[in-house]
Amino acid sequence: MPDYKLTYFDIRGFGEPIRQLFHLANTPFEDIRLPFQDQLPGKQTPQWLEIKKALPFGRLPVLTVDGLDIPQSAAISRYLAKKFGFAGKTPEEEAWVDAIVDQSKDFAEQFRALIYATKLEFPEAEIQKIREETFIPGRDLWFSILARRLTSNPSGFLVGNGLTWADLSVADNLYTLEGWGLLGKEHGELIEYRKRIYALPELREHIEKRPECSV
Amino acid sequence: MPDYKLTYFDIRGFGEPIRQLFHLANTPFEDIRLPFQDQLPGKQTPQWLEIKKALPFGRLPVLTVDGLDIPQSAAISRYLAKKFGFAGKTPEEEAWVDAIVDQSKDFAEQFRALIYATKLEFPEAEIQKIREETFIPGRDLWFSILARRLTSNPSGFLVGNGLTWADLSVADNLYTLEGWGLLGKEHGELIEYRKRIYALPELREHIEKRPECSV
Repeated sequence: MPDYKLTYFDIRGFGEPIRQLFHLANTPFEDIRLPFQDQLPGKQTPQWLEIKKALPFGRLPVLTVDGLDIPQSAAISRYLAKKFGFAGKTPEEEAWVDAIVDQSKDFAEQFRALIYATKLEFPEAEIQKIREETFIPGRDLWFSILARRLTSNPSGFLVGNGLTWADLSVADNLYTLEGWGLLGKEHGELIEYRKRIYALPELREHIEKRPECSV
Repeated sequence: MPDYKLTYFDIRGFGEPIRQLFHLANTPFEDIRLPFQDQLPGKQTPQWLEIKKALPFGRLPVLTVDGLDIPQSAAISRYLAKKFGFAGKTPEEEAWVDAIVDQSKDFAEQFRALIYATKLEFPEAEIQKIREETFIPGRDLWFSILARRLTSNPSGFLVGNGLTWADLSVADNLYTLEGWGLLGKEHGELIEYRKRIYALPELREHIEKRPECSV
């Protein structure tokens, strides 16, 4: 078995679906968690800047497989999902998994703007502007895409008739939105979906034991 | 052979690497090009809004394969690259191709901010601010990543010892930057690389015949 080391921050974020893939596959990995606070824009510590210099793209997560560094969260997740059997069952399913993940990343950028404005304590009016003009339109489009997808797919998963890494990525992001009070009862089907993924036997122990974190 | 239809705008943008993959594989496809102007923010035409409603994610490109719609440019390119043999030769090469493409998309967002500000004729001071604060830092990081990659890989391609869809995507974006005067002589190695990819015999005819476009 290869030697796996995941380097990310002490948050869920883009690293959590990667951790979950290892748990689903019952495959050991080294889970290195650096302080998220150390890299916030304008608050970067010398320790972080030193680490950053050595990273392939200056960012985390990075997965190291027998000494080979692989950057970019979706590239890492897809690599493991293919190895472990969660990438989709046909080329068309794989393409749809990829499409959903990329769409979710587009939305994540809009959500990230709101998270950073909040964490960096921007003036309330500015946070409000980001919420109204960037976050809400992005979220509404994204939720409508997800709801349509779940309605049209009777399996209860986003693609095909089984779990894929798109489900891991989407469910964890929905969990974050719930925690921020941004996923309400009017989207009950999305809350149900998130709970269904979180209740998977292979994930439950990991999810119960993982450190609490708002992002 | 499946029936392929690509719907995109009358620009290169995120659709051009998809078109190039078809040409590389000598595989016919229907190349539908809608007016890019019709969807500019604040200038959307009723025709575009009608088309947008019917798209899986409300955006283009969409590839239709025997009636199945696949959205998201990277998902489409990867799907075809795997079919046609340009996705990388090992799982690790595939992951690096994916990582480079995602990093290039992160930079493309920063470039896009500048393109839209210019096309929508923002006030000069605002364009300048986007250029200095968003575009230039993003470009400098991206160029340093590319230069390092090309120096460390003796094949002249970004990943492994042959052409991948990462090369198509990166080379076309570099061509756009050249056209905008944003890729200068100090990055001669990137200009050389772009010319090398554009000179591939399977691409030359397509590139010579395609409509001129700044993006």
